[in-house]
Amino acid sequence: MNQPYAVDLNCDMGESFGAYPLGHDEAILPFVTSANIACGYHAGDPAVMKRTVRLALQHGVAIGAHPGLPDLVGFGRREMAISPEEAYDMTVYQLGALAAFVRAEGGIVHHVKPHGALYNMAAVNLALAEALAEAVYRVHPEACLYGLAGSALISAGQKLGLATAHEVFADRTYQPNGTLTPRRQPDALITDADKAISQVVRMVKDGRVRAQSGEDVAIQADTVCLHGDGAHALAFAQQIRARLKQEGIAVRTHQPVSA
Amino acid sequence: MNQPYAVDLNCDMGESFGAYPLGHDEAILPFVTSANIACGYHAGDPAVMKRTVRLALQHGVAIGAHPGLPDLVGFGRREMAISPEEAYDMTVYQLGALAAFVRAEGGIVHHVKPHGALYNMAAVNLALAEALAEAVYRVHPEACLYGLAGSALISAGQKLGLATAHEVFADRTYQPNGTLTPRRQPDALITDADKAISQVVRMVKDGRVRAQSGEDVAIQADTVCLHGDGAHALAFAQQIRARLKQEGIAVRTHQPVSA
Amino acid sequence: MNQPYAVDLNCDMGESFGAYPLGHDEAILPFVTSANIACGYHAGDPAVMKRTVRLALQHGVAIGAHPGLPDLVGFGRREMAISPEEAYDMTVYQLGALAAFVRAEGGIVHHVKPHGALYNMAAVNLALAEALAEAVYRVHPEACLYGLAGSALISAGQKLGLATAHEVFADRTYQPNGTLTPRRQPDALITDADKAISQVVRMVKDGRVRAQSGEDVAIQADTVCLHGDGAHALAFAQQIRARLKQEGIAVRTHQPVSA
Amino acid sequence: MNQPYAVDLNCDMGESFGAYPLGHDEAILPFVTSANIACGYHAGDPAVMKRTVRLALQHGVAIGAHPGLPDLVGFGRREMAISPEEAYDMTVYQLGALAAFVRAEGGIVHHVKPHGALYNMAAVNLALAEALAEAVYRVHPEACLYGLAGSALISAGQKLGLATAHEVFADRTYQPNGTLTPRRQPDALITDADKAISQVVRMVKDGRVRAQSGEDVAIQADTVCLHGDGAHALAFAQQIRARLKQEGIAVRTHQPVSA
Repeated sequence: MNQPYAVDLNCDMGESFGAYPLGHDEAILPFVTSANIACGYHAGDPAVMKRTVRLALQHGVAIGAHPGLPDLVGFGRREMAISPEEAYDMTVYQLGALAAFVRAEGGIVHHVKPHGALYNMAAVNLALAEALAEAVYRVHPEACLYGLAGSALISAGQKLGLATAHEVFADRTYQPNGTLTPRRQPDALITDADKAISQVVRMVKDGRVRAQSGEDVAIQADTVCLHGDGAHALAFAQQIRARLKQEGIAVRTHQPVSA
Repeated sequence: MNQPYAVDLNCDMGESFGAYPLGHDEAILPFVTSANIACGYHAGDPAVMKRTVRLALQHGVAIGAHPGLPDLVGFGRREMAISPEEAYDMTVYQLGALAAFVRAEGGIVHHVKPHGALYNMAAVNLALAEALAEAVYRVHPEACLYGLAGSALISAGQKLGLATAHEVFADRTYQPNGTLTPRRQPDALITDADKAISQVVRMVKDGRVRAQSGEDVAIQADTVCLHGDGAHALAFAQQIRARLKQEGIAVRTHQPVSA
Repeated sequence: MNQPYAVDLNCDMGESFGAYPLGHDEAILPFVTSANIACGYHAGDPAVMKRTVRLALQHGVAIGAHPGLPDLVGFGRREMAISPEEAYDMTVYQLGALAAFVRAEGGIVHHVKPHGALYNMAAVNLALAEALAEAVYRVHPEACLYGLAGSALISAGQKLGLATAHEVFADRTYQPNGTLTPRRQPDALITDADKAISQVVRMVKDGRVRAQSGEDVAIQADTVCLHGDGAHALAFAQQIRARLKQEGIAVRTHQPVSA
Repeated sequence: MNQPYAVDLNCDMGESFGAYPLGHDEAILPFVTSANIACGYHAGDPAVMKRTVRLALQHGVAIGAHPGLPDLVGFGRREMAISPEEAYDMTVYQLGALAAFVRAEGGIVHHVKPHGALYNMAAVNLALAEALAEAVYRVHPEACLYGLAGSALISAGQKLGLATAHEVFADRTYQPNGTLTPRRQPDALITDADKAISQVVRMVKDGRVRAQSGEDVAIQADTVCLHGDGAHALAFAQQIRARLKQEGIAVRTHQPVSA
């Protein structure tokens, strides 16, 4: 069967820490095609990283590094006034740490996706975005850089010739300029699963998303972010897989094609 | 001039952290042939690691990873009851982090030497030694494992086919069984520089060291540990270089020859 | 109704950290009389500490500080070779941190119980025990020191004139010398709830426990440690409360009577 | 001799950490009247805190808590997007930790001064300032809150009835609105010691400072911040003491007078 459309489903994983379990990695893995593995700064620890790399390999899911800010208690969600050089340094460090586990287990690092506040800052701050892209370029020139669709991070990656993947969100609403509605706004989240999935289908098939204002905005949807925790994570993963199949959209790991 | 004898001089480096400078890396680098670079657990941070890797490359000094226990406030010097698996995990993590900086700067990781309490535990605890050796083998199969001369760590490395380097100390006294006199004993340290250097010369040329008890003990001296901090670090480095030259002992990076 | 027997039920609490929930504090609080609140070294963070202090006050449960080793990833369960002075310092620090939340909420610190490896080390290492007791004495001279029944920690507290509470375990077996059977031994745990509770009843009423060897050993049972996590924590708490009532044993906070 | 003018000289102290010495606390202590002691988040550790408290008591210097952001590698100098509640929590924690050492040594906590980015944020962000003031009020209602002269932190403290001290800087230039010229501007620093000291004298005697624009700005100078590190720290401390004496300005600990 020929499928003219395809999309990657990615999920943050390996977010447990020491005695603290978090997420449902094993249950979610069958439904996703890319795993973003925490690297010990905002979540994860060496034992968790090893275990998660092994799990991803067992499920044939593409492995990505998921570097974050050095803020375990804040789960990397609080913005910090770091310099681009500091961003570069902490990203190289975390990429290396994960790469060693991947190498030890005989896999390869397929992509890199920054986490939380680092992701958000790199979406709009070009100097920071360039520092992150440079880190990926120097450590994993062959890897794919995942970033918010249409963001500064994607541009910075492309400028260096890195393969990139535009990431979209099923359960977040968009603004007329193509960015996400900030979480503090009441209409930031799409809580209805059907609506969320329909938004994804339209983004993949038509390259468009309806902003809250009612306008249509062009968007590129290479990969969709699924959530691995929460009560409905698993059910939603199953639902979106079923619907994408029905719509003739192949679900497969994003193929890194460098610029 | 033909030099039948050779030895490597190694030094712990990159031990600064954030706003805290430590050691005299730039001053010592011209005198050593191997740099053991801290990996952020007991000392060092990403910025320091990058800077130290660059410095070592500029000086043509072989780069080694220097993983330690996760104990910054204790500088990795307090033993912790970690399992072999935990030792493996934390070593893979740190090896990877350093390797990324080395790769980003276009160098290669020449060796691995555990730090402080991890070094001491791996010298006598075979299960721990095997876990560390396994980590090196999986991440850097081509690297050389530095360990206390004649220790469990060296055996574990050899068992896996890793290249190894027996490390000796200029300023520490030895016991009849070839191990170091514990620091808590009054005669543990050799404070006279001439005596310390003569001990090294004899270890390199004759493969022997005189234990505190008066007996001669066989010892293999592939690499000598110099200290990078303290008031006399630089003067001692200059002295030992001069004396080794005079004795016809070449000072060069230990050549990894895998078993 | 006159109850000639009484015992305190204590439970470790406030062990969540950042995005990581742990334990069932709210559910267990109605069943215990003392809460040992983690202080941020092995578990807990400032937000969790504040919340847990408030919960304990709401339930009228006595608040204790629960200091541990600085090892979040190991949950304070891995022994570390710390000096008595280091033990004193880290205990003072943690006692103060918790005391500030208690003061801010208008409560008082009723007791101190070290956690995990620190508890175990202080049970047998007299120098460490004395350092911990000294920390309690200097920061909370009026507080009660909880320690393993008959341990070095209890002795050290009594020597300084601190009130002390001998702690016993429902679900652990004992050795002929009155210490716990190490966890690595197959018969260390009592998995049958009835047996576990009967052991407590006998310790409280008769001051005796039957060692694995069959001998009876004298033991003082001022407080019983309940577990706050695990599937059966709540059910067990209910069961032991019911049984103690039936046996005429009052359950109440241990009354600090300084020596 | 009647001295109509008086000022407090304060200095950040106890910023060493583990194996890392920082600053010249012992040398500076004879010249200052208030010591702001780091509490382990941005600098300092339990051993350093104990030692510094003892030193301050020996020199009869008033002890203050110096809480910072949880960012050791960044020395608390990088702003973080923390909520007011998080600011409250981390401040209570740190205040308590230091208070325990002060209590253990028989002293009292005289003041609280936030550090680095926390100080800067609390100078302009009223919600954060109120959270910090609330933390001080709940833990040390009798202590004096040190903040940037005329800042939101001072206002927040006064609103709660806390004693406050307006802090001025000798070596920083001011803007027409009374705030410091940001460090990134070329004229932010006063490098000439005489000029710096003259600025202080005028602030104390006339309650005015000349802004870079040439205008005179009203300012209250209760306490002057001296730096404890750097090559010239000691010389400057001696110079300013001599000059203040000459000008008839008494140097004494700021007397907390609650509003």
